[in-house]
Amino acid sequence: MKEFIIIGHKAVTTPFSLNDLPGAAGRMDILCRCVNSALFLSHDLRRGVRVYLVLKGGAQSKIVRFDGAAVRYLSPDERSAASLIKKALEKQAQGFWTESTPGVSIKIGDFSDLLGELNKKITYLREDGVDIRIKPLEVVSDFLFVLGDHMGLTDDEEKIIEAHDHEIVSVGPLSLHADHCIVLLHNEMDRQDAFNTSNK
Amino acid sequence: MKEFIIIGHKAVTTPFSLNDLPGAAGRMDILCRCVNSALFLSHDLRRGVRVYLVLKGGAQSKIVRFDGAAVRYLSPDERSAASLIKKALEKQAQGFWTESTPGVSIKIGDFSDLLGELNKKITYLREDGVDIRIKPLEVVSDFLFVLGDHMGLTDDEEKIIEAHDHEIVSVGPLSLHADHCIVLLHNEMDRQDAFNTSNK
Repeated sequence: MKEFIIIGHKAVTTPFSLNDLPGAAGRMDILCRCVNSALFLSHDLRRGVRVYLVLKGGAQSKIVRFDGAAVRYLSPDERSAASLIKKALEKQAQGFWTESTPGVSIKIGDFSDLLGELNKKITYLREDGVDIRIKPLEVVSDFLFVLGDHMGLTDDEEKIIEAHDHEIVSVGPLSLHADHCIVLLHNEMDRQDAFNTSNK
Repeated sequence: MKEFIIIGHKAVTTPFSLNDLPGAAGRMDILCRCVNSALFLSHDLRRGVRVYLVLKGGAQSKIVRFDGAAVRYLSPDERSAASLIKKALEKQAQGFWTESTPGVSIKIGDFSDLLGELNKKITYLREDGVDIRIKPLEVVSDFLFVLGDHMGLTDDEEKIIEAHDHEIVSVGPLSLHADHCIVLLHNEMDRQDAFNTSNK
């Protein structure tokens, strides 16, 4: 399983207009593009991927989960992902996962709760991390990546990561959007998977 | 200069609703995401990049150009790029470039015209091309990449490419969306640029 957590510091936690994702919805466009880059292949979906969007722009933090193995009604465009997030926010979120549409679920919870629930080694993306081509990603079947939105991660969020087993990596010499980083991470893992398959 | 041509086979050539980019606008969402991945860095733009969108979903093919050195009013979300494309389509397009908003221009023309105008070696992205990590991209300052939309390129479009100096490359073992390919191409060039700078 490859899992991605993206933290949306301004992303709203109540239903929003699909016509203003960057503004009124609190840079929801960033999270929508991350759903796209984490889940889409050309004419296919990455079934072994889950995406967790931590929405922090409300009184109470909520988490929306997209499960590549089960998701339906998702198209590559931002508005499509946004529509499914909006439907999730229309649900009465609880402290446990509630499915809003096939493969999309929501719960009340914050970043710390989520890391506790997933309970595995974290690969945190940060500009000054070790380049994944210098120290290749460990060949594991179970990845948990954490990425920030346009604001990066706060000191408090970094402290939460530091309390877990983790490594800090980067994907190249320039500072990139989270969704672009996800594309690069997938490509690195795709290459490892192809190499491992051909050497079996 | 790094230039990207993306061919939108169904993309409309008249103003369209921003609320249905995949449907009524003929998969305009794909082209908008390519504008994003070609031009955006985190909190910055790639100034040395131009993007050409070939819109083929009308009676007469049109080309919209985004120039990273001059573009204004562009945000990373799909709707923002779409809004600038729409404004370009509201112009009376001619056989020469007309600027619709700063850094965005339009002309009547097709893929063949455009290749003739740009007149340089083409790097064509195709799944069965040579992997850019097996045969690295030539270190040149002037790239012209050609990518297809969800339909790839037609036989006729491939024949047009074959009439020019060209190479056929791929970016990894899986078939990816055009915008994801652009992210991977940029990363490869960013790494080359950083390597060349550090060895000067």
